[in-house]
Amino acid sequence: MLKNFFAPKSIAVIGASHNKKKLGFLVYENIRKYGFKGKLYGVNIKGGKVGAKELYKNVCEIDGEIDLAVIVVPAAAILEVIHDLGRKNVPSAIIISSGFSEIGVQGKKLEEHIKEASQKYGMRVLGPNCLGIIDSWSKMNASFAESMPAKMNISLFSQSGAICTAILDWANKNEIGFSRFISLGNKMDIDENDILHFLSQDEKTDIVLGYLESVNDGIRFMTNARHLSLKKPLIVVKSGRTSEGAKSIASHTGNIAGSDVVLDTALKQSGAIRADSLEDLFDYSKIFAFSPEMKGNRVAVISNAGGPAVMMADYIGKSSLKLAEFSQKTRKVLEEHLPAEASCHNPVDIMGDGRADRYEIALNEVLQDENVDGVLVVLTPQVMTEIEKTAEIIIEAKKYGKPIAVSFIGGEKVEAGKQLLEEKEIPSYDFPERAARSLEVLYEYYDFLKSALKKKRDVQEKEHDQNKVAQIIKPAVEKRLRTITEGDISAFDIFDSYGICTVDRAYELDLDGLKHIGGKIGFPVVMKTAVDVLHKTDIGGVVTGIKNESELQKAYFSIRDRVREAKFQENSDKVDIYKQENRGIEIFLGAKKDPNFGPLIIFGIGGIYVEALKDFAYRIAPISHAEALKMTDEIKSAKILHGYRGQPKCDLNKIADSIVGLSRLMLDFPEIKEIDINPLKASDKKCVALDGKIILDLESLPVLELVK
Amino acid sequence: MLKNFFAPKSIAVIGASHNKKKLGFLVYENIRKYGFKGKLYGVNIKGGKVGAKELYKNVCEIDGEIDLAVIVVPAAAILEVIHDLGRKNVPSAIIISSGFSEIGVQGKKLEEHIKEASQKYGMRVLGPNCLGIIDSWSKMNASFAESMPAKMNISLFSQSGAICTAILDWANKNEIGFSRFISLGNKMDIDENDILHFLSQDEKTDIVLGYLESVNDGIRFMTNARHLSLKKPLIVVKSGRTSEGAKSIASHTGNIAGSDVVLDTALKQSGAIRADSLEDLFDYSKIFAFSPEMKGNRVAVISNAGGPAVMMADYIGKSSLKLAEFSQKTRKVLEEHLPAEASCHNPVDIMGDGRADRYEIALNEVLQDENVDGVLVVLTPQVMTEIEKTAEIIIEAKKYGKPIAVSFIGGEKVEAGKQLLEEKEIPSYDFPERAARSLEVLYEYYDFLKSALKKKRDVQEKEHDQNKVAQIIKPAVEKRLRTITEGDISAFDIFDSYGICTVDRAYELDLDGLKHIGGKIGFPVVMKTAVDVLHKTDIGGVVTGIKNESELQKAYFSIRDRVREAKFQENSDKVDIYKQENRGIEIFLGAKKDPNFGPLIIFGIGGIYVEALKDFAYRIAPISHAEALKMTDEIKSAKILHGYRGQPKCDLNKIADSIVGLSRLMLDFPEIKEIDINPLKASDKKCVALDGKIILDLESLPVLELVK
Repeated sequence: MLKNFFAPKSIAVIGASHNKKKLGFLVYENIRKYGFKGKLYGVNIKGGKVGAKELYKNVCEIDGEIDLAVIVVPAAAILEVIHDLGRKNVPSAIIISSGFSEIGVQGKKLEEHIKEASQKYGMRVLGPNCLGIIDSWSKMNASFAESMPAKMNISLFSQSGAICTAILDWANKNEIGFSRFISLGNKMDIDENDILHFLSQDEKTDIVLGYLESVNDGIRFMTNARHLSLKKPLIVVKSGRTSEGAKSIASHTGNIAGSDVVLDTALKQSGAIRADSLEDLFDYSKIFAFSPEMKGNRVAVISNAGGPAVMMADYIGKSSLKLAEFSQKTRKVLEEHLPAEASCHNPVDIMGDGRADRYEIALNEVLQDENVDGVLVVLTPQVMTEIEKTAEIIIEAKKYGKPIAVSFIGGEKVEAGKQLLEEKEIPSYDFPERAARSLEVLYEYYDFLKSALKKKRDVQEKEHDQNKVAQIIKPAVEKRLRTITEGDISAFDIFDSYGICTVDRAYELDLDGLKHIGGKIGFPVVMKTAVDVLHKTDIGGVVTGIKNESELQKAYFSIRDRVREAKFQENSDKVDIYKQENRGIEIFLGAKKDPNFGPLIIFGIGGIYVEALKDFAYRIAPISHAEALKMTDEIKSAKILHGYRGQPKCDLNKIADSIVGLSRLMLDFPEIKEIDINPLKASDKKCVALDGKIILDLESLPVLELVK
Repeated sequence: MLKNFFAPKSIAVIGASHNKKKLGFLVYENIRKYGFKGKLYGVNIKGGKVGAKELYKNVCEIDGEIDLAVIVVPAAAILEVIHDLGRKNVPSAIIISSGFSEIGVQGKKLEEHIKEASQKYGMRVLGPNCLGIIDSWSKMNASFAESMPAKMNISLFSQSGAICTAILDWANKNEIGFSRFISLGNKMDIDENDILHFLSQDEKTDIVLGYLESVNDGIRFMTNARHLSLKKPLIVVKSGRTSEGAKSIASHTGNIAGSDVVLDTALKQSGAIRADSLEDLFDYSKIFAFSPEMKGNRVAVISNAGGPAVMMADYIGKSSLKLAEFSQKTRKVLEEHLPAEASCHNPVDIMGDGRADRYEIALNEVLQDENVDGVLVVLTPQVMTEIEKTAEIIIEAKKYGKPIAVSFIGGEKVEAGKQLLEEKEIPSYDFPERAARSLEVLYEYYDFLKSALKKKRDVQEKEHDQNKVAQIIKPAVEKRLRTITEGDISAFDIFDSYGICTVDRAYELDLDGLKHIGGKIGFPVVMKTAVDVLHKTDIGGVVTGIKNESELQKAYFSIRDRVREAKFQENSDKVDIYKQENRGIEIFLGAKKDPNFGPLIIFGIGGIYVEALKDFAYRIAPISHAEALKMTDEIKSAKILHGYRGQPKCDLNKIADSIVGLSRLMLDFPEIKEIDINPLKASDKKCVALDGKIILDLESLPVLELVK
């Protein structure tokens, strides 16, 4: 429980100082001066005073219980402090001091010792190397930040102290307050997962903002983030988008999915909102703080200028929002009350000479229209424009309980109006695109909630033969085989065991064996030599498009002769036969084990083109059948699956089965590093893997306990 | 010449009034009070006074010459005013009054009469329905805007008066000034083309901003925009991005290219910078106003916080900029002078406790490094941060003559520093992403200039047989044929005449004619029945993959029998033969005549997938060979043309020949509305159109004068 960090009854500042230039002074003073109501003790090994108050030389001298220690002594002295605190049963500490893992190996070692010591005492520790904690509800500013935010329902945690100070400064200027404000520092003990868990249950927090540079435990993070998102919006900025680390080149999958793709997928799957910049973070937090639920994506635009109105219509057209179609009644009322030149369709243009009364008519009508889920109001300061009065009318319109986002475009003239809107908690933006984007994010969050809370009757997952796969993989691991494709140890056999249909085939047939193959597999077929060589085509060992028995024979002799010419002996008279699947759409399925988040599954249309365009849908395993179906709909080229331009309409359920099977396979076998299934041929009738490979993670432990 | 609009020696305000609520008062007063140095006359049919000055009842009563009339009388009275002005030889007029084409048919008619009258007198007219003109150099505010911008080197024109007032208001608050500020209104006479022409030669204008809702003459616009862009940056916001008007469904091309694509292409081709929002317009204008030339795309990032530094590195990685690699000397000096924990690579992290001196060291070093073309400075307000001092150091660093974009992230604390930067003309942004994006736009403009001014030795354009194509098209037009494909009137023959190679083929062969076809065309071939039927495949009239003489014969009889079964008589014993081109990449080439800008040419990789993803490059004809080559490199899937994944590397010159030919064909034959060439099969050896169709514009006049 982190309660002691936010509402402690007593705080001891270890390293409190009367020297105004020291952090020990700043932190002690911040706690005192902003009105913390509990007991405050100052501790300094040298004794002395802060103001009128005597400092203790050691925390043990303090009589009462201490809920929270805030430590600002130099790094080298902290281990001893922890022991003192432990002996006094102090349950919680913030280490503000720096000089730990952030400065290198030496500091890292010190940090580990401190962690050990604090764990021994069961003490929870925030930091080191952090700004501290501010809690506007208990009026506790246990940080060296030089200001105290106003009370509000937004909590923030940040891995960067610099970002903390910048955000605080920005928030002061823009009259945004905070509930809990947490600087994580080096995350020695308490990390984003603890904070997410705490804030999800915190009644004083309705919105959570986070700035992250790394995630400690991806799987826990996803669980916590989702848990929180189902209760309140979580908006995250993560720096380090493109730093993808070392690139795998063993598979397509490795190339496609860098580490940022994994985090992005994790956030999306958890229902968290990813902000691309601090600017977006601020924009989004404003709309969530001030808006009621947005029940759908149908937006009305009201403007006193045509240009911005059209620009908003454009923006909406490209977003997940859409322009509301007004009811007949709404249109009629608007037509009656607005001048003839005004546009009474959506966007509503009340014209440049429109005063506040026209905004009033338009707002009242569209907000009562059941085809409207939210409103965007745009104003430009023209000669007749009544700016403050319009602001008041917008404030009045809150009564309809629908989200309203506003942009008064301009400078000094619109300032007073914007001020009014801020005071009365109407989200207002300098530019209309930002208002529209924020409304879009608001809608997307409530849409996530709606679909997440809907009880889904999912398709029963197919049984998978884990034992059989274990038996195939075990010898591969033992042989230190990096890649499983075709052959004795067959990727196809593994796929089959997990509900991923594979191409009909027969291995190592001689001329006699070919006799009945047409009847069994059906023409056309592909024939490949059975000799063990990497590039079978290069030695004339592959014939495609075999349509009948006579072509089959001809192909057999041709391959046999060419292979013998190339001086192959073993299996030179044997061939493998594959059903040739001409019909259907080529699909790419990939999987990649992420050390932090678990298996990432990748779905896209196959072929060389689409890979070049990186049009993929991602999920982290496990994936339900319903989620797998969603993936097929998420890619930009989704319409190709629905019978585009004379192609067959794919059986999406069969594709989803393959996705679910692949996700399950990855979870069951952590020995697998990556899988490519390329292509998976999908049509209205079937969905068949034509080729695929499995890359093993030879560095990981072979678990394989299933094999007796 | 528009000189009279900006530096008139004398102005008459027609409709000047003493009534403070009237535009006639506002406009007259604005001219007077902001310090216009020339003569100012007030005219009002009722006479009277404004202040101490007597009003003339008619412009003819004025003794001296009048360079510019500003008209604010009601719409109905204006025709007479124009005649009065004409008789007095007034060369220029601004009609501020509204009530014209913007209110409907009646107003449109009135506007036309006024246009006729003014043209009769050779009078140039701005408006009607506009805000007017402000010129900070002649201190003339001939508008009803309530403020006067400071002198600066930025000029602005806008088709929306509302946008004008919003921009002025914004600019006042943000201490941005203007040179010429022009509200276009209804563009009855003077339009964006006149303004572009004027501003390109205007010494008081170094940067041009434009807000457009429509373009009057696309071809002139492109010429003027390019002419201007070669001298100074032109930044344009256009509203109405997605409103694509009626969609053509006759061809792929029609579907792909909406009207916004055309304008976007026109702007790009002209070197103009398109801003997506007013916010971007402001951001970009700031960096152009304050920055020296940016000679390359190598950017150094300096920050006192790790998170924002990484975010900037990410942003740069995804932009056309790149992170500079410092010279050894730079790294060495940084390592010597910055603390051990600081990052001395790019991005440079001077650490949270860094004071102004560290910024100074870093700035001086990286700006002297010849591997650095520009710098991004990021600051967060931490305890030790010296904000104003850092601002001064940045200002000092201007001396190195390289662009610097700055973001001080925060609120009140960083305000004074930001103020300093603004005053000394350092482009500064609230958020670092905006600084980075602006720097990117700056680079892209100078890169455009560099490549535009480089003298290109272009490949000699091939001769095209215009006469032959005229002879093919003429009967098609006469027959009112909408679409030309194969047959008597052949799209292939037209393509051939314009250097677009087409598939080898032979038409209407009987059994005898087939005998030598293998030798002539070469196997494999496709055979199609020569009967005139739309869906030849449906009646068994097509056989593909014919590999030798015997298959040829078999196919012939199969087709003949099936066609006869289907009761076709004419030509039932004849077939067409096409070379089957299996090897290579399928390319899509399209062309579409835009009524305003001329032919738009579209290039992309073919196949159903890429069309679904809309990955195309666009140009407006004419297209040089060098530009055509650039198109092949511009699409996201460009690498597919360069020998991707075992595909052949395409002969890009041959593809460019086809693009150039298509562009020439469209220019020579305005009868053509749209062309699809789909696919064009390109490999290392050839580039051959396998299918294609031409849609005629039967509504346009058949010009065809070439045909005797």
